[in-house]
Amino acid sequence: MIVDKLYRAVEEKGHVCVGLDTDYSYLPSAFASRFETKGEAIFEFNKEIIDRTHDKAACFKVQVAYYEALGLEGLKAYSDTLKYIKEKGSISICDIKRGDIMKTAEMYAKAHFTGDFEGDFITLNAYMGVNDSLEPFLDYIKNQDKGIFVLVRTSNQGARDFQYIKNEEGKYLYSSVGEKLQELSQDYLGECGFSSIGGVVGCTNNEEGIKLREEIKSMFLLIPGYGAQGGGAKDVVPYLINGNGGVVNSSRGIITAYKKDGSDPMDFAKAAERATVKMRDEIREELKK
Amino acid sequence: MIVDKLYRAVEEKGHVCVGLDTDYSYLPSAFASRFETKGEAIFEFNKEIIDRTHDKAACFKVQVAYYEALGLEGLKAYSDTLKYIKEKGSISICDIKRGDIMKTAEMYAKAHFTGDFEGDFITLNAYMGVNDSLEPFLDYIKNQDKGIFVLVRTSNQGARDFQYIKNEEGKYLYSSVGEKLQELSQDYLGECGFSSIGGVVGCTNNEEGIKLREEIKSMFLLIPGYGAQGGGAKDVVPYLINGNGGVVNSSRGIITAYKKDGSDPMDFAKAAERATVKMRDEIREELKK
Repeated sequence: MIVDKLYRAVEEKGHVCVGLDTDYSYLPSAFASRFETKGEAIFEFNKEIIDRTHDKAACFKVQVAYYEALGLEGLKAYSDTLKYIKEKGSISICDIKRGDIMKTAEMYAKAHFTGDFEGDFITLNAYMGVNDSLEPFLDYIKNQDKGIFVLVRTSNQGARDFQYIKNEEGKYLYSSVGEKLQELSQDYLGECGFSSIGGVVGCTNNEEGIKLREEIKSMFLLIPGYGAQGGGAKDVVPYLINGNGGVVNSSRGIITAYKKDGSDPMDFAKAAERATVKMRDEIREELKK
Repeated sequence: MIVDKLYRAVEEKGHVCVGLDTDYSYLPSAFASRFETKGEAIFEFNKEIIDRTHDKAACFKVQVAYYEALGLEGLKAYSDTLKYIKEKGSISICDIKRGDIMKTAEMYAKAHFTGDFEGDFITLNAYMGVNDSLEPFLDYIKNQDKGIFVLVRTSNQGARDFQYIKNEEGKYLYSSVGEKLQELSQDYLGECGFSSIGGVVGCTNNEEGIKLREEIKSMFLLIPGYGAQGGGAKDVVPYLINGNGGVVNSSRGIITAYKKDGSDPMDFAKAAERATVKMRDEIREELKK
């Protein structure tokens, strides 16, 4: 089960998930100008960062929107990036947040678990229904070592619009989503005790987060919101169980670290490495407390 | 406003939205074998169908999942199909159901309203929050003649999982989604009285549907579920207002019509044309009743 591989990666390399949300404007201009196309420049930028961080980060999350925004050329860079992550023996999370039903969901499974855009994990949105949206992915999870992270509760302000609607029994919508997923996740448990059916849960450290973690305790978590969205190491701790069971994403905080730490822009990959180590150690320190 | 163009298209050409959910297996083998790549074959198949139906259908909906499933080659066919729809003066709906926030949502807007994957309308999922998910699209709607259809209520069985959760006041989740969208839609009204912020609402003909339509009366609707998912002309009528304000999608019912009507497979485009005319007339007849 892929979740066991991710669990071991967390044990060995810490909790950091490096987010390759690579916008062309993030590239140092002296670096970017070496390449003929934006797509090529972005892939080479990612490659240097992967080289420097793959032994210090549990996995990489590639946000497809940034690549789609550059059209076919961008998606070539997306595909090359995923292949390179695999080549380095690392784990990829394709942040695609797709959500559809029936034959369309089947097509998304084929698209992102095989071929040009193959990743280890993908993110999904289950608004259209748990079984209807997820069914076509289950066979890949069981038999082809794939995993999913389904949106449960995000930490943006607008999350309040719907995710926090209470049902007649006073239960939040995100908690109803979590409940259905927790149930489904039982059939896809790895040896590590977590499931290859994971959840996306924003890091906000409060009572409510602790309660939610209790409700979805078999799910491995992808935790966004570190740094840029205001979360810190303290906010992550309630979502981990015995120090594992979650990876914490940071994108700009790592890949544009060179802009903040005063280093030579051409050393962007070294700056990313330092930012990764710092974040990894902050979380490890916090866990010891 | 793009919604006015769509409104006029419905007036002139009827309510049919031809769904180009083109799976390679749908192509007659004698046709497919003429081309070197699957992507090329799919584009040429779409092209013949567009040629035959663009004056009998209001618009075309292209389901990106089918193209993503073929990787880069498939997305080239997707891009070519969208360009061809534009070349013919028709309206495209990119069925992408993306849903994300902040800079990622900005990237999706750029990806699908400009460049290789540019369409007139796109479909979106607002689970992460109305303003957070939709904000980056609004400027394109106002200033660049673009439109969106946001998922409100689907007609699949799994829709019950979350969309039908009642809040403390007994209001369905889909109705809360509709309410927020109806409010936002007011700032994007066209001359036709409908908004370029539209909704996706599955066609199920019942009291509840009539009530929902009343709640979101400014929204132009994209109505899936005709044919394959069991809906018929009767089920569509409650979602139209004075005979307009909605397009009805049929995909397989049109593009694989040749498999059912006994025609020569190579005449698939003529069969698609006949199926389009039949559906168009069924809806028009029903509206007269």
